[in-house]
Amino acid sequence: MFVSLSTDFGAASTATCAGVVHSLAPGATVLVLSDEITKYQIVEGAMLLRRALPYLPVGVHVGIVDPGVGTPRRPIAVETARGDVLVGPDNGLLVPVCEPLGGIEAVYRLDNLDYRLPRVSSTFHGRDIFAPAAAHIALGVELRSLGAELPPDELVRLDIPAPRVSAGEMVVPVLYIDEFGSLILGGERGHLDEAFGLGDEYGARLEVGWTDDSGETRTVTMPFQHTFGAVPRGHLLCYEDSSGWLGVAVNQGSAALDLMLGPGDVVTVRESRG
Amino acid sequence: MFVSLSTDFGAASTATCAGVVHSLAPGATVLVLSDEITKYQIVEGAMLLRRALPYLPVGVHVGIVDPGVGTPRRPIAVETARGDVLVGPDNGLLVPVCEPLGGIEAVYRLDNLDYRLPRVSSTFHGRDIFAPAAAHIALGVELRSLGAELPPDELVRLDIPAPRVSAGEMVVPVLYIDEFGSLILGGERGHLDEAFGLGDEYGARLEVGWTDDSGETRTVTMPFQHTFGAVPRGHLLCYEDSSGWLGVAVNQGSAALDLMLGPGDVVTVRESRG
Amino acid sequence: MFVSLSTDFGAASTATCAGVVHSLAPGATVLVLSDEITKYQIVEGAMLLRRALPYLPVGVHVGIVDPGVGTPRRPIAVETARGDVLVGPDNGLLVPVCEPLGGIEAVYRLDNLDYRLPRVSSTFHGRDIFAPAAAHIALGVELRSLGAELPPDELVRLDIPAPRVSAGEMVVPVLYIDEFGSLILGGERGHLDEAFGLGDEYGARLEVGWTDDSGETRTVTMPFQHTFGAVPRGHLLCYEDSSGWLGVAVNQGSAALDLMLGPGDVVTVRESRG
Repeated sequence: MFVSLSTDFGAASTATCAGVVHSLAPGATVLVLSDEITKYQIVEGAMLLRRALPYLPVGVHVGIVDPGVGTPRRPIAVETARGDVLVGPDNGLLVPVCEPLGGIEAVYRLDNLDYRLPRVSSTFHGRDIFAPAAAHIALGVELRSLGAELPPDELVRLDIPAPRVSAGEMVVPVLYIDEFGSLILGGERGHLDEAFGLGDEYGARLEVGWTDDSGETRTVTMPFQHTFGAVPRGHLLCYEDSSGWLGVAVNQGSAALDLMLGPGDVVTVRESRG
Repeated sequence: MFVSLSTDFGAASTATCAGVVHSLAPGATVLVLSDEITKYQIVEGAMLLRRALPYLPVGVHVGIVDPGVGTPRRPIAVETARGDVLVGPDNGLLVPVCEPLGGIEAVYRLDNLDYRLPRVSSTFHGRDIFAPAAAHIALGVELRSLGAELPPDELVRLDIPAPRVSAGEMVVPVLYIDEFGSLILGGERGHLDEAFGLGDEYGARLEVGWTDDSGETRTVTMPFQHTFGAVPRGHLLCYEDSSGWLGVAVNQGSAALDLMLGPGDVVTVRESRG
Repeated sequence: MFVSLSTDFGAASTATCAGVVHSLAPGATVLVLSDEITKYQIVEGAMLLRRALPYLPVGVHVGIVDPGVGTPRRPIAVETARGDVLVGPDNGLLVPVCEPLGGIEAVYRLDNLDYRLPRVSSTFHGRDIFAPAAAHIALGVELRSLGAELPPDELVRLDIPAPRVSAGEMVVPVLYIDEFGSLILGGERGHLDEAFGLGDEYGARLEVGWTDDSGETRTVTMPFQHTFGAVPRGHLLCYEDSSGWLGVAVNQGSAALDLMLGPGDVVTVRESRG
């Protein structure tokens, strides 16, 4: 059975969880998908799972970004239509990936003490609850023996503003900063086409605007391009990210650092008339 | 056989050691426990092994933080009562984990040239001595063929100040900074109870004091809590870390950055009367 | 079959490529050799492959530092005399490692759409082209079915200045900064011996000079030593790196930070008369 782990823990604590899986389920193939999620950034973690898990084998996928560890937030296992089981905290992290995995089949609380380590700390549920649950699921334990079934619509959902599209403009949140410093936006190419046609050719110029920390309005213009190398080094572009979201990048640079934007910011994209 | 690797090398050199194990012992399961130990921080590495290895399968565990590579410090293999073999330099790194693994059974020098790579560099013993030794041990080579047996009490020990507990206060070193920026202290909850009773309820207020770089005495107060989420975001707490040590943390922040403390510093913990 | 991955992607995207390999070739052993190459630093990536792959099992080795992703640069597979297959972009990254792997046997373009993912993005060929090719090769697909054979001498080569050696001095480029902040130079010990004899004993003093950003000439002196611990903490040394290149390091420090040198800089090494 295939088990993946994605956390904001750094190397050692993530590998400790992998070690728990290896201890309980020696035959499992264990892949650390990421130990580098920005700490406490649930949305970034959720988007990472959403873009990566469809490319991994069907298996048990543990996701942990868990600022509420030790509080009453629920530990859960989510079965997807593709056959995966997602394991982690009920804080919104596991929900966005369910759609590309075919949707939610069933949700269970991880209540059963038999499938935890004998001693559960209040600060490291990855090691003490989530990794053991994943190992037992990989070993074939039935999900309904893990704990009470929960109605899927009771799951905590992320609070991400939907894209607002009107004639001539699209207003979208910055979801996260990717490994290359690119800003991934909460909107897709179709939203841009709805606001104004991009046309079939690449190169249409866009204006991206926002309000900075001092209350000033700022705008930058950039072409819509298919890949980084289509603009000179150090130049901005808007592109369709490999996850399907729109992105704003600097070729061989960091849009996040250049524009000082990040998660929580909102940008307006218009056709540039310049 | 299970082989783990923990180093201060970063990804590539650690994975090169893993590659040496895969080359010599193709059937081994190899886990990088950490490639992110702070460079040259032997105490941090020792504490990582101490808290993590009890959760890994019994196996061969390589630990390398080795500022003395190429000098006469000895390369060793340590057999534990649990059945593990620890491989690394004799500089104190491997000693603290032995106790939770049941104690030391035997120690051997890694003298035998047959179990090294044919050419041994003077700066990368992880690749040339420690990884090959681990692979051969995983393949079943008897420890006594690796080299001379050493008396366990001749092993180099870490020089960590013991906690000093008196009526009303506990004086302890900062051992290391964990991945969340929390300060892990060289004392346990029992030491605090010995100094003054914490009571059964969480919430007792503590005063933590130290002398800063300019010679000024600084103190902060914080509650003793069971988990980060028990204090508001950005607030300090003292807690029992998942390794059993006491920790000082900031909920969703970094106590190390906020207080400017780290390994080598010493703090005094008292009951707060404020 | 053994598959390694080396990228400048960070953890999640590299592990996504690993996930693609696991999905297509479930029996493969997959090792992430590095996900930490400095972004866009093709020379650093090439030198990492050159020093590490000879220590890994014969297998399929994917290397990706690819600022030209989505542009016409060619995706290739290179067969080596040792029996490895190197997979990545034709931008010079894969060439330097071929020599220690016995030389190039054959080169193929990765043209065949059957061995890519069904949908190929323009920004993530690691996931969509290189990882699937590696998985299919690991499964036994013949290289000639991947695409057109290319003459090895048409491969893009790195543009690294060769060492210039004359009586009394060696002029060499800084190739990359390693994980310890050491400067790895594009010259070997033999070049130094050619310029002036180092003698059999360690300790000969060298003068390293360069022109800094403001146009000033700077020089530092240091001994040639066999290992870091042969100089006091914080002191410079020149040494033969475990890869065979010459290096400039600071014992338990960073030569790159202290001297403010890095890839692209050129230094002159002379015998010190001080």
